[in-house]
Amino acid sequence: MNKGIFITIEGGEGAGKTTLIEQLAHTMQQRGKAVITTREPGGIPIAEQIRSVILDRSHTGMDARTEALLYAAARRQHLVEKVMPALADGQIVICDRFVDSSLAYQGHARGLGMDEVWSINRFAVDGAMPQLTIYMDIDPEVGLERIRSAGEREVNRLDLESLAFHQLVREGYQKLLKRFPDRIVQVDAGKAANVVLEEVILTIDRRFKGFFAADVQ
Amino acid sequence: MNKGIFITIEGGEGAGKTTLIEQLAHTMQQRGKAVITTREPGGIPIAEQIRSVILDRSHTGMDARTEALLYAAARRQHLVEKVMPALADGQIVICDRFVDSSLAYQGHARGLGMDEVWSINRFAVDGAMPQLTIYMDIDPEVGLERIRSAGEREVNRLDLESLAFHQLVREGYQKLLKRFPDRIVQVDAGKAANVVLEEVILTIDRRFKGFFAADVQ
Repeated sequence: MNKGIFITIEGGEGAGKTTLIEQLAHTMQQRGKAVITTREPGGIPIAEQIRSVILDRSHTGMDARTEALLYAAARRQHLVEKVMPALADGQIVICDRFVDSSLAYQGHARGLGMDEVWSINRFAVDGAMPQLTIYMDIDPEVGLERIRSAGEREVNRLDLESLAFHQLVREGYQKLLKRFPDRIVQVDAGKAANVVLEEVILTIDRRFKGFFAADVQ
Repeated sequence: MNKGIFITIEGGEGAGKTTLIEQLAHTMQQRGKAVITTREPGGIPIAEQIRSVILDRSHTGMDARTEALLYAAARRQHLVEKVMPALADGQIVICDRFVDSSLAYQGHARGLGMDEVWSINRFAVDGAMPQLTIYMDIDPEVGLERIRSAGEREVNRLDLESLAFHQLVREGYQKLLKRFPDRIVQVDAGKAANVVLEEVILTIDRRFKGFFAADVQ
């Protein structure tokens, strides 16, 4: 069904996902690849509305299961309206966060259980899983400090969680790495951005057999 | 955990759920029972916001799985904030629609599959299922005509579905009756309201061993 390639980028706050995704897409475009970058809710009106319910700071009483279901709902709509049409069109889709974020944040860090959270995400994605997931590993103290000092975006409800919460998120990602060793590849996001980019390019090239080499002769 | 009794009322459009619930609660209150009536989203702000996303008439492009996840999310929050505290307090909770609506509407009528929709609702309810469900069976043509002629509420997105859709909903409920014969009891909602009420009172009295008789000596 899908002629394109679906790649997701995962990691804690301040890992540098945004920068990596921009540079990676730029590199691919320079090689003549048709690529789109996106993140949930991705400008999809229904998904945007759902996301605004989740991130509303007045909603401190939101149950963890409610939150997980809302993330899955926004994910579904974004997948159907934006990701799947692009893949069907043969494009490369690079998505900032996907199912693994829910498994690490809600499943592990909030204690709902990864299997439980997977059950609703399995329903949401209905088989449309990424071929490759890059996990950008960073010490939460370093990541959160990067966000604070950069001041590049408004602090949201998730950033306000305790450091202990973000440590649990990292632990959750480590469990996912062990569970899906073929799909998920870890990179050290504490390194300089250009080094991280280089490693990711090599990973993609190996995974998709000369992906970058093929078009540059 | 729950000292109260959790009863849900199910049925297609125009079955007369609202009238039955009012009269049933009134009857219980006259017998000195502590009872609350509710329906999702039930005045719970988070659930109200979710429901407004679902019923927005501009959202004709909403995917069926997105919709099912949103219903499950609103259900979860309503359950946690309103139903479970009342049950813990020993009250009787009569709820207009619950899990079975999602199984009949999304699972069967929209073709997602009842097992699939159950997987996300199992996550949402986390064990908090009703002790008794009254299914009010009505011919969809009769039910939809009741709504049109009464003109008592604004026509919403679900009412605008085709008659064939509502026939499928009824078929879905019939499957649920076979699957959960101990929990779900069917009443003929084509009968007069007072006859339906009488049947439901007898059902509850039998199910909860002299529920109505006990307090009236």
